Amino acid sequence: MQQTISRKIYLELPAPTEDDARGDRERILEAIPPEYGEVRMPLPVLRTLYPMCRDAAYHLTVTLVFCGTLWEVLRVEPSDTTDRLYGAAVDYGSTTLVMQVVDLLTGEVLTEQSIFNRQIPYGEEILSRIFYTKDNPEHLKELQQVTADSFNALVEKCERACGIPKEQYTAMTVGGNTTMMHFLLGLYPWPIFETPYAPVAENPGFLRAEALGIHLPGYVYLFPAAANYLGGDIISGLTATGIDESPELSVFIDIGTNGELVAGNSEFLLAGAGAAGPALEGGISRYGMRADTGAVDRVRIVDGKLQIHTIGEASPRGICGSGIVDLLAELFLNGWVDSLGRLNEGRSERIITVKNHLDEEQTELAVCYAWADESAQGENLVFTQHDITEFMRTKAAAHTMVSYLIESFGLEAADVKRFYLAGAFGKYLNVESAVTIGMYPDLPREKFVLIGNASLKGAYRLLLDLSALEAAQRILKKITYVQFANAGDFVEKMHAAQFLPYTDLTQYPSVKKKLEERKQCGFC
Amino acid sequence: MQQTISRKIYLELPAPTEDDARGDRERILEAIPPEYGEVRMPLPVLRTLYPMCRDAAYHLTVTLVFCGTLWEVLRVEPSDTTDRLYGAAVDYGSTTLVMQVVDLLTGEVLTEQSIFNRQIPYGEEILSRIFYTKDNPEHLKELQQVTADSFNALVEKCERACGIPKEQYTAMTVGGNTTMMHFLLGLYPWPIFETPYAPVAENPGFLRAEALGIHLPGYVYLFPAAANYLGGDIISGLTATGIDESPELSVFIDIGTNGELVAGNSEFLLAGAGAAGPALEGGISRYGMRADTGAVDRVRIVDGKLQIHTIGEASPRGICGSGIVDLLAELFLNGWVDSLGRLNEGRSERIITVKNHLDEEQTELAVCYAWADESAQGENLVFTQHDITEFMRTKAAAHTMVSYLIESFGLEAADVKRFYLAGAFGKYLNVESAVTIGMYPDLPREKFVLIGNASLKGAYRLLLDLSALEAAQRILKKITYVQFANAGDFVEKMHAAQFLPYTDLTQYPSVKKKLEERKQCGFC
Repeated sequence: MQQTISRKIYLELPAPTEDDARGDRERILEAIPPEYGEVRMPLPVLRTLYPMCRDAAYHLTVTLVFCGTLWEVLRVEPSDTTDRLYGAAVDYGSTTLVMQVVDLLTGEVLTEQSIFNRQIPYGEEILSRIFYTKDNPEHLKELQQVTADSFNALVEKCERACGIPKEQYTAMTVGGNTTMMHFLLGLYPWPIFETPYAPVAENPGFLRAEALGIHLPGYVYLFPAAANYLGGDIISGLTATGIDESPELSVFIDIGTNGELVAGNSEFLLAGAGAAGPALEGGISRYGMRADTGAVDRVRIVDGKLQIHTIGEASPRGICGSGIVDLLAELFLNGWVDSLGRLNEGRSERIITVKNHLDEEQTELAVCYAWADESAQGENLVFTQHDITEFMRTKAAAHTMVSYLIESFGLEAADVKRFYLAGAFGKYLNVESAVTIGMYPDLPREKFVLIGNASLKGAYRLLLDLSALEAAQRILKKITYVQFANAGDFVEKMHAAQFLPYTDLTQYPSVKKKLEERKQCGFC
Repeated sequence: MQQTISRKIYLELPAPTEDDARGDRERILEAIPPEYGEVRMPLPVLRTLYPMCRDAAYHLTVTLVFCGTLWEVLRVEPSDTTDRLYGAAVDYGSTTLVMQVVDLLTGEVLTEQSIFNRQIPYGEEILSRIFYTKDNPEHLKELQQVTADSFNALVEKCERACGIPKEQYTAMTVGGNTTMMHFLLGLYPWPIFETPYAPVAENPGFLRAEALGIHLPGYVYLFPAAANYLGGDIISGLTATGIDESPELSVFIDIGTNGELVAGNSEFLLAGAGAAGPALEGGISRYGMRADTGAVDRVRIVDGKLQIHTIGEASPRGICGSGIVDLLAELFLNGWVDSLGRLNEGRSERIITVKNHLDEEQTELAVCYAWADESAQGENLVFTQHDITEFMRTKAAAHTMVSYLIESFGLEAADVKRFYLAGAFGKYLNVESAVTIGMYPDLPREKFVLIGNASLKGAYRLLLDLSALEAAQRILKKITYVQFANAGDFVEKMHAAQFLPYTDLTQYPSVKKKLEERKQCGFC
């Protein structure tokens, strides 16, 4: 049975006679199968019925859209158009919005486009945007407007790319974090950031696209937030995994600007969040950057020589999260850093100690020499000891949060059935390297699922499978938020995790084996 | 239990804490009693929550309005305002709109105001207005606009009269005929008047006031139409009577521009309509007029002398329906006309034969001599033989329709439990006179109920009693429309009714008795 969020029904109705002079509205609604309940036909649709129904000899296609508590008629049109039905799924991030136009009859993604969030000029950091709107209704309106503009520009980009006019996008599903949701709704996000962090709305559900300034005919569904730090993007992502439908333990990690983490099964869900993002989006290093064209995303050391790969195979511009993970793993496996992450100057000519602008001595690694690429303008792409130390903290945090949640279930890492890695970071990540540095537990590799943009995937699922709505609500009810800062031994555990891969190597048998193999082959 | 169409709930909610950081929206909705089901909070309300909820320390009054399938939050406001709750009931006629502002806590009518329908400049006759909009979207828009203007002007008139600002009118219920409904909705009324007379919509339900151009915060409910000639005004009127809730037979007559008639009980409802109106609204006579200031509304012949009364006790300007009924009854009882309605020239000096402008001889009665009133400008207020003959047809039609419906139930007039007379006509009518001329059956007078503006009363009832919604839907399902034109012996029966009071005098024992008394007293 078709479970899509919008439907088309073709009707061949008897034309009115003196014995059956029902209104056009009633003629249509009474012909809709009873499983749709009391269907609403709004005024703009009523106004299209005459003379259209008569001209079409009452051979009509009715488009129904779900709007939270009931079905509504979105459109009545002449003849049979049930061979085409489309929707749009959106991951609404603070930096980037990604949209898919989906054929709701086949599930095919007709196009996937992205656009920078037009809020960015109001602050790269979300907090700047929030401050901009604080106690200022005009500024709030402005932010709502640029948000709607972002959606509209993206819709038009999709329209151009796939050729399906936007009037045919019957529904839009959106995964976005709590602050992003507030901006789109035109609600003050300030209380999300002020103690006790209670948002204005968490679960606004279905809203008319036009009411939000988005020029689409139907409704926009916003995935609900479970808490200020656990937004609709995560809930959407979780519905994409089905994590709460299995009795076995799964872990879900979405690392974007923040790092959000959920562990659980069909009984319980525990969630936590930490500011893992900056490190992984390049915030820790002068040369750090997002996973974009020209970012070093893969690193190998072969025969003592460092090899790099860049996204789009373009000239290197910086290094992104997956590149850093790869780099650190390779440095460790080749002995260029020790288990405390200290650079070993004797290991490579690329490792040198220089004086920084504060006249302090600093050891650094040249990831890429200036002469290798003209565009580098005479500067080496370097990763410093300080950068490594910072990143060690990030990976320790990730490790500790995961193990803390797993232990909360009275289980251990080996009991995890699926380990979902979401986000752009997850998309490019080399799991082997991430395990090598002890960022994630040493699980059989087939347990790792790189699901990429989970928020988008959840939005996509809902377009095709209305049961995802209940899944989202079920997850909301089930999820418990853990504040790591309040957890007694969290800091202690984090210290223990600031080793490569970990203080206790028996927890990382695959890494231990690799290290032994390297020793055996005489490489070290 | 309170069954009003809108409600207020006062909430004293706990303010957010770190342990309970739910959103304001969720905090409020979760505190609403479960009998309201899944309550919707629309975007404009969401936008009012911050910082209002916090400023009010979460002591809030929530106004809920019913919108057909569910309850919606109309407003959230600080502190306890549950001591005031208002709604508006409207009878939306083609000539006049009447509005009551109702205190929903006490049922008190705070004001009742009326206004001329601003569609009138587009045609006194509804048909002219319909033609004006035919195939012309701009004209249709224009008519919708003047209709909304009428409502808005009336709302403002009420506002001024009762001092309750319109923002506080939480709901509006409207009884209007099918064509009027189409104009308000901006739907082409043309198909209602073209065979097979199928409207665009019969049962549009609840619509946002603003979507209709009516500047009120909530929803407008339009009573549904059962057929083109049996509009929401009649359905509203029927819900006011409870006619379908009793096993005994009742008859409901609403005579406005058209005459609508319903007979029935809790099992069946039969409805019919006829163009009785013109005669009763003055359409048959040069001096006919609506029941308005200066209309002769009561007539008596005392000691051979004709006495008149006018509405507002103003100078006579014409004669209205109730005046005509009274006049004919008195003429008959005093032998000024015979049982065929022929003026008896010898009976009074007021009855004379003159030549009309076509040089034809015509007998007429001077209802009021010119010299009695300066404003008559030298002309007598007359009622001609032709006027009487025309009116005899109207009263015969009314009689025949009633008896036809009663007989359809296999019953006779004596079985009627209640005889509801609705409309402005019903309000002023002298039942005694109406029975005397055989317009209505000769029932014990206490069975007649002059309910006045039934459409308004139904709208009023719904404001206070949501079960009237189901009553309206139940009536819709139960009602069967009878086309008198198709009824075999209808014309024959109508001929039989063109006597005063009726061919068969045994059906009118009270009239027979009156006539005998007059004879005994030697008056005739």
